[in-house]
Amino acid sequence: MSSSTVEFTDRVFGLHRGGKMAVTSTVPLTSRDDLSLAYTPGVAQVCEAIAADPRLAADYTWASRAVAVVTDGSAVLGLGNIGPRAAMPVMEGKAVLFKQFGGVDAVPICLDTQDVDEIVSVVTALAPSFGGINLEDISAPRCFEIERRLDEALPIPIFHDDQHGTAIVVLAALRNAATLLNRKLGDLRVVISGAGAAGVAVTKMLIAGGVNPAELVLCDSRGLIHSDRPDLTPVKAELATLTNAAGRTGGIGDGLRDADVLIGVSGGQIPESAMAGMAPGGIVFALANPTPEVHPEVAARYASVVATGRSDYPNQINNVLAFPGIFRGALDARATRITEGMKVAAADAIANVVAESLQADAIVPSPLDPRVAPAVAEAVADAARRDGVTP
Amino acid sequence: MSSSTVEFTDRVFGLHRGGKMAVTSTVPLTSRDDLSLAYTPGVAQVCEAIAADPRLAADYTWASRAVAVVTDGSAVLGLGNIGPRAAMPVMEGKAVLFKQFGGVDAVPICLDTQDVDEIVSVVTALAPSFGGINLEDISAPRCFEIERRLDEALPIPIFHDDQHGTAIVVLAALRNAATLLNRKLGDLRVVISGAGAAGVAVTKMLIAGGVNPAELVLCDSRGLIHSDRPDLTPVKAELATLTNAAGRTGGIGDGLRDADVLIGVSGGQIPESAMAGMAPGGIVFALANPTPEVHPEVAARYASVVATGRSDYPNQINNVLAFPGIFRGALDARATRITEGMKVAAADAIANVVAESLQADAIVPSPLDPRVAPAVAEAVADAARRDGVTP
Repeated sequence: MSSSTVEFTDRVFGLHRGGKMAVTSTVPLTSRDDLSLAYTPGVAQVCEAIAADPRLAADYTWASRAVAVVTDGSAVLGLGNIGPRAAMPVMEGKAVLFKQFGGVDAVPICLDTQDVDEIVSVVTALAPSFGGINLEDISAPRCFEIERRLDEALPIPIFHDDQHGTAIVVLAALRNAATLLNRKLGDLRVVISGAGAAGVAVTKMLIAGGVNPAELVLCDSRGLIHSDRPDLTPVKAELATLTNAAGRTGGIGDGLRDADVLIGVSGGQIPESAMAGMAPGGIVFALANPTPEVHPEVAARYASVVATGRSDYPNQINNVLAFPGIFRGALDARATRITEGMKVAAADAIANVVAESLQADAIVPSPLDPRVAPAVAEAVADAARRDGVTP
Repeated sequence: MSSSTVEFTDRVFGLHRGGKMAVTSTVPLTSRDDLSLAYTPGVAQVCEAIAADPRLAADYTWASRAVAVVTDGSAVLGLGNIGPRAAMPVMEGKAVLFKQFGGVDAVPICLDTQDVDEIVSVVTALAPSFGGINLEDISAPRCFEIERRLDEALPIPIFHDDQHGTAIVVLAALRNAATLLNRKLGDLRVVISGAGAAGVAVTKMLIAGGVNPAELVLCDSRGLIHSDRPDLTPVKAELATLTNAAGRTGGIGDGLRDADVLIGVSGGQIPESAMAGMAPGGIVFALANPTPEVHPEVAARYASVVATGRSDYPNQINNVLAFPGIFRGALDARATRITEGMKVAAADAIANVVAESLQADAIVPSPLDPRVAPAVAEAVADAARRDGVTP
């Protein structure tokens, strides 16, 4: 361990000591009068009003403002199935990012079960306490079923950030990269390396955003995904019928031959020899963290625009550009779910923030750009009203 | 509605608009460096450390500081079974009182189920997210089973405040009232009106604190509880074998004849004729809120020390004297449960705060007294170590 790594480690552990978040009261509690308003006997009036008209809960409780960040610890960052206790630092981090960038009050909920039925029933039972559920770091394919069932069961937004947050920011970045290169989304040949939660969602989002599914090829750890492969999960089989119209087979090198775009969401390494087959002047998003599928300096030899998931290279594809504004907008509009239209609107809003100042090393805003979350929130709330999912 | 009631109502609803609490970050999040420490890539180091040694979760996450305030909305204040959404204002109030008086970060969790098995399984699944569970406003007898099963299942403190918070403050108040009247707890004849969650817990707590069970009589809505009654729940049947050694039968008036102490935790009204039978110079705690079992002015005709649950009369028996300090102490000591010894220690600590200045209208501290929670926390942490429930 180098001395600078040790120094970073010390700072990391120092910062995390005691956790990263707190609860605060937004009302005064220092006099008997204060207590009689905020607690008994005053509070009984509010309870009775909500009991008579449950819609008032949105006005007079924090449930309309609070989001649960729910994980089972099964797929945490790149660390894998480390369980709910070890996942907590990530969920706390997510919660404070929600507040910092979206003004959203979020509570980390780390579950001591990885059973799909049990997760669905626990989150359903919790739901009256929250205005939205952000699912986080739940492994595929369980995450697909959990999200679908919760979305059907509950009248509040359900959003698996590892899928949709990533997918939204990828679409935003790809839009701007295509604009910069004078290409149309619908003309690009796209390879997505990785068909887990993020890969599946990126595929669907890019198709919703205008990428031609016939010219899009997915690659998982066993090679390119095509309809004749006998080993596909239901989700991958569904995508196989939509994508890869040419029926390409083989490995990532076969997929990348003459491709315009590589999007890596797998963590697996892609050899430079495979990169060399890409069409010149294309786009590479190598998003694995901390080790991108292809080093950005290598990628730059074969592509005109390169993005990663890392903060120490240009063009960081960071979910924090999406999730705070998405929930802020959904909560503001009292949306009952997150529609495809709301996700596309979020991607457009992110892309637009830097549309006037596009450069190859600035296709997405900085994660710290304060313009992003309000723009996303407004676009998402508008889209929710357009899509008819508001009261 | 009088104009002052309207004014109070307006202030109550104004105060509750948008809820009463918020989440805040305790770490800076304004630079790329901040994000790399608090979130990726830094956070991965903390996750890996906890995965390798789960005990580190207590040092590096907020779970060791956070308490879930869990209800199913089945017995909210005196309002009854109003459900989880209408219960939220009370749970938020509780959460902010936890913070204000005990520095405890608390999160309201209102469950959309009243099934005992499901509540136990939901709370068990949530447990890695919290350092303690405060059960709240769950109806009897379900609350007894839920608390017992969670206490057996989980290695963190479980505390049903309606039972034990009330019982602890009642014991504290009775200690000081007895001292003031130069009586010994063990010599008092005590009647407890109400055998729900609070009545059962008060009975057990007073016995643990030194009241003679043979001279203690419980009364429920059907009359005095004695071993020959065929209609008793298991919990009441157990208490019948411990208490009422004389086998008294009849109603509250029969129980109160020559009694020294009446503790009302029922909400049912007690007629003045029944009060008149008490031994002179005794003690009445009429704790129902907002309408005490006997009006304090009526009670004062027959007793030397009178307490209520209301803030507008002297001697308010208020759980806020107990729960913030109890969880503060239990969390500080990393206690794995709340023992009987910790509860008695909490009662002693509350009583001691005003021991030097005892008066008939000041047998318990004000709920706003800043000395209480730290004293309770220290006593509870010491008792936890004594009782061997700390690491």
